[in-house]
Amino acid sequence: MKKEMEKIVALCKRRGFIFQSSEIYGGLQGFWDYGPLGVELKRNVREAWWSDMITTHNELVAPEGAPKPFSMTGVETTIIMHPSVWKSSGHFDLFHDFMVDSKESKARFRVDHVSVAVAYAADKTPIACETYMADIGEEGLSKTKRKRLEKTIAEYEKEHGLDASETPQITVCNLMEYRKKMADANIPTTGKLEARCPETGGELTEPREFNLMFKTIIGALAGEEGTAFLRPETAQGMFVNFKNVVDSGRVKVPFGIAQIGKSFRNEITPRNYIFRSREFEQMEMEFFCHPDESFEWYQYWRDRRYAWYIKHGIAKENLILRDHTQEELAHYSVGTADVEYAFPFMEEDEYGELEGIAHRGDFDLRSHMEGKLVREGDQLVVEKNEHGQPKYKGSGKDLTYFDDQTRERFIPHVIEPAAGADRATLAFLCEAYYEDEQPDEKGNMQTRTVMRFHPRLAPVKVAVFPLIKKAGMPEIASSIYQRLKSAGIQAVYDQQGAIGRRYRRQDEIGTPFCLTVDGETEQDNCVTLRDRDTLEQVRIPIDDVVTEIHKRIYG
Amino acid sequence: MKKEMEKIVALCKRRGFIFQSSEIYGGLQGFWDYGPLGVELKRNVREAWWSDMITTHNELVAPEGAPKPFSMTGVETTIIMHPSVWKSSGHFDLFHDFMVDSKESKARFRVDHVSVAVAYAADKTPIACETYMADIGEEGLSKTKRKRLEKTIAEYEKEHGLDASETPQITVCNLMEYRKKMADANIPTTGKLEARCPETGGELTEPREFNLMFKTIIGALAGEEGTAFLRPETAQGMFVNFKNVVDSGRVKVPFGIAQIGKSFRNEITPRNYIFRSREFEQMEMEFFCHPDESFEWYQYWRDRRYAWYIKHGIAKENLILRDHTQEELAHYSVGTADVEYAFPFMEEDEYGELEGIAHRGDFDLRSHMEGKLVREGDQLVVEKNEHGQPKYKGSGKDLTYFDDQTRERFIPHVIEPAAGADRATLAFLCEAYYEDEQPDEKGNMQTRTVMRFHPRLAPVKVAVFPLIKKAGMPEIASSIYQRLKSAGIQAVYDQQGAIGRRYRRQDEIGTPFCLTVDGETEQDNCVTLRDRDTLEQVRIPIDDVVTEIHKRIYG
Repeated sequence: MKKEMEKIVALCKRRGFIFQSSEIYGGLQGFWDYGPLGVELKRNVREAWWSDMITTHNELVAPEGAPKPFSMTGVETTIIMHPSVWKSSGHFDLFHDFMVDSKESKARFRVDHVSVAVAYAADKTPIACETYMADIGEEGLSKTKRKRLEKTIAEYEKEHGLDASETPQITVCNLMEYRKKMADANIPTTGKLEARCPETGGELTEPREFNLMFKTIIGALAGEEGTAFLRPETAQGMFVNFKNVVDSGRVKVPFGIAQIGKSFRNEITPRNYIFRSREFEQMEMEFFCHPDESFEWYQYWRDRRYAWYIKHGIAKENLILRDHTQEELAHYSVGTADVEYAFPFMEEDEYGELEGIAHRGDFDLRSHMEGKLVREGDQLVVEKNEHGQPKYKGSGKDLTYFDDQTRERFIPHVIEPAAGADRATLAFLCEAYYEDEQPDEKGNMQTRTVMRFHPRLAPVKVAVFPLIKKAGMPEIASSIYQRLKSAGIQAVYDQQGAIGRRYRRQDEIGTPFCLTVDGETEQDNCVTLRDRDTLEQVRIPIDDVVTEIHKRIYG
Repeated sequence: MKKEMEKIVALCKRRGFIFQSSEIYGGLQGFWDYGPLGVELKRNVREAWWSDMITTHNELVAPEGAPKPFSMTGVETTIIMHPSVWKSSGHFDLFHDFMVDSKESKARFRVDHVSVAVAYAADKTPIACETYMADIGEEGLSKTKRKRLEKTIAEYEKEHGLDASETPQITVCNLMEYRKKMADANIPTTGKLEARCPETGGELTEPREFNLMFKTIIGALAGEEGTAFLRPETAQGMFVNFKNVVDSGRVKVPFGIAQIGKSFRNEITPRNYIFRSREFEQMEMEFFCHPDESFEWYQYWRDRRYAWYIKHGIAKENLILRDHTQEELAHYSVGTADVEYAFPFMEEDEYGELEGIAHRGDFDLRSHMEGKLVREGDQLVVEKNEHGQPKYKGSGKDLTYFDDQTRERFIPHVIEPAAGADRATLAFLCEAYYEDEQPDEKGNMQTRTVMRFHPRLAPVKVAVFPLIKKAGMPEIASSIYQRLKSAGIQAVYDQQGAIGRRYRRQDEIGTPFCLTVDGETEQDNCVTLRDRDTLEQVRIPIDDVVTEIHKRIYG
């Protein structure tokens, strides 16, 4: 069954998982709120990650597949950081795009994604162009447009008495390059040389800068010196605190620093529900290790992070671990892999990124020591301005590490597993959604909607029902509910309507276990435990309820 | 002992509780990061709040002191919300100040806090003024300044042949009012009529607007329509989702919506460590109830929230519950109380706010229906613009509640306990800090620094030590450590140095329990449990370690 995204979205709104932000005011594009069930689901997702990374991590024993034992620590750093952080990290320069809009349709495109095919006459004069709102490369020119350009060339050559070109010259470049080329040659881009919207034939706006970092002003009265940015990633919080953590934490390399927190990107086209939002939550970890061991650690984290999703209920057939090709790699990375999920809103064989695991070398710590780095041949060097000075100064602080066993000083390499908490939550929601056929009270088959969350992630773990609202059943049921709540187990109590309808309500929000107090409970001191997925019902003693539920959730 | 703030701050940095944000770049005023221990402490503070509000809340039974049973739900809403939210709520208009700076000293003052004493001659001409960087009221004019003004009046009257005033007229107003008065009368405020800095005698800048909300732009290319604000409180997220929660959650009034999340205020003078930061975290709850029962609920939450701090280790002598005076109350509030703590950085008998519990009436839901409300006599009415239209439109959505038992429709009243997570964390840090005298290994008395955190809040619950690094002790100790970690208990393992020094290290970070494996452990299968506060040592069986620690933490 191909899952239908519309049904999932409707369920999330109806049952209180996800609402549009500021919905009563018409909403805000790219911003989403979590409702009562959503917040519990997301808390469980975060907790599963933090528990795996920090709480249950044993620093004395190497986990399976790891080269050696290691330490893990956490931090929580601010969303607004010193602006120099983003200059050194490269975000300040690199994190913006030039965009054009179609004036008629209001559609918006990245300038370097717009292709312009330029036709040259035999005398090398550019005489016409065709625009594509996509990166078509040299080969992607359509037949119609090629013909149109060739016709224009022929007309021009005839008119100007030129020998007709044997192979009419047509080159393809992006809009940015096109504008620069024409400007350099002093050729106005009007008339047939004007890049126009291929959909509407209408005009395009001038390219305008669009910064993906949200900007704000600290101290309000100040000028540029008060400009700051909302972080587009939590990672820099770990890099700038590397030395603080080493100095205070008695940790030794290799070790990791983990953080969960909000990040912000002023996305041009937020879309696909909570998949691409402007405000989102990340679960990132920076793992610092010796350069010689870094590739082994990269492999380790790459596999471990893939396994985490599987362990929490994502089916293997929906999840891939995809290594980046050489072209995709960031200029500082020697290896990156994505964990990707087959979201229902994607085409067949398309996947959406849940997490990137990157080998970042010493790029980050070096940047924060020396200033923004760029690649020069095989080397990463500090970018210079026109006076030969560093374009941006780094902190000048020593972020090297001294190993007192080997007496070696080095800049640790970094492995970064960077996950999106909202994307993980969305994947767990999509994966959980099922429809099946189950008999109702009268034995007629009915479509049942069931959210098959991993018990650990389910927002409600257990529902407690008195079979009927009398004969002492509500009293027993409410005392069981009380026990579960006191033990910190997410539980609800429901005595409204037929038992079948109550099951259905719990199935729809993914409650893995239901406990029913019935007429026999008073005699045998047991309740019926019903399993959401197998529909199996077993009797368990009331006194075992908390431990039984705990065991079924955490194993 | 008066606790010394400097020592607490130094410990927090040394042991990894709190670092300055972006410290390697010189830091950022009003922004603080949590280090490895700080993040665990803060997670525990949040968890203690969430557990009390949501996880362990029993909706079937009225808690002690509560008028009746009630439901509790959570949400997580976005930091950037629709700008109309802040127009209706009143923040857009009210949440900014006009400020002046002393050009010489750079000191900054709120214009309405600056007083100007204006001297008038007998012919009603204003002829001189004196400025106070404080709100002095009509009575606060100093003798010196009064004499100076009277002398100026006398000179002027003599020079202009006026009869000398019997009682020279001197009025006091704030700088804003002063400037308006002079501008309306077309009198230039130069020379003796210039308001100058009373400290330096130097010039003041023009009043400039300072908005306490951080502003940003969504969509980057857009004009004003893209302006948005970082929320200055999480509360509005609950109000705008009131209807969504009612419609999806099967909750009935009375019920509460709780949220934990970051808020931002562009404070003019961030100060006192993490007490007044520009980026901070709140734990807020909006409790919706019938108007007739609202005062009872206000009393209930007021007392319950005070008790929460006491329960988590704040001494009664350091915590007060202070009811606001009539003058302090916001224009919509019929009652507000603050939970306040005697922070070490405050003067004797001064307290700093940890939490405000406010009876907000129907102000918030009505604002979001109708638009920004202002007081007119006894009534709250929608503020009008000069055309008699609502200054800001509300959402126009129906946020009333229909009680299907009583068949009554009403706008619920709201009780809001709004706590600061960072302030609570700081109070727990300050409260925990102690120095006492304890004998070292050789029996000499030494000053011991100990953080007496409530076990539930302590970032590390238990440390496991092998007495010596041989005779199988490390193996047993590490297996105990493993058991604790697997059970999700925050634990550390330490085998470095003399046992006394290891205790000292744990005392300094507030670890309530230490377990030592010694020479007898192999025989009796027991370890020594040492209590941080009583220093009492007892033997407990290894198999009971997890349950014993759990019991000592959660009772």
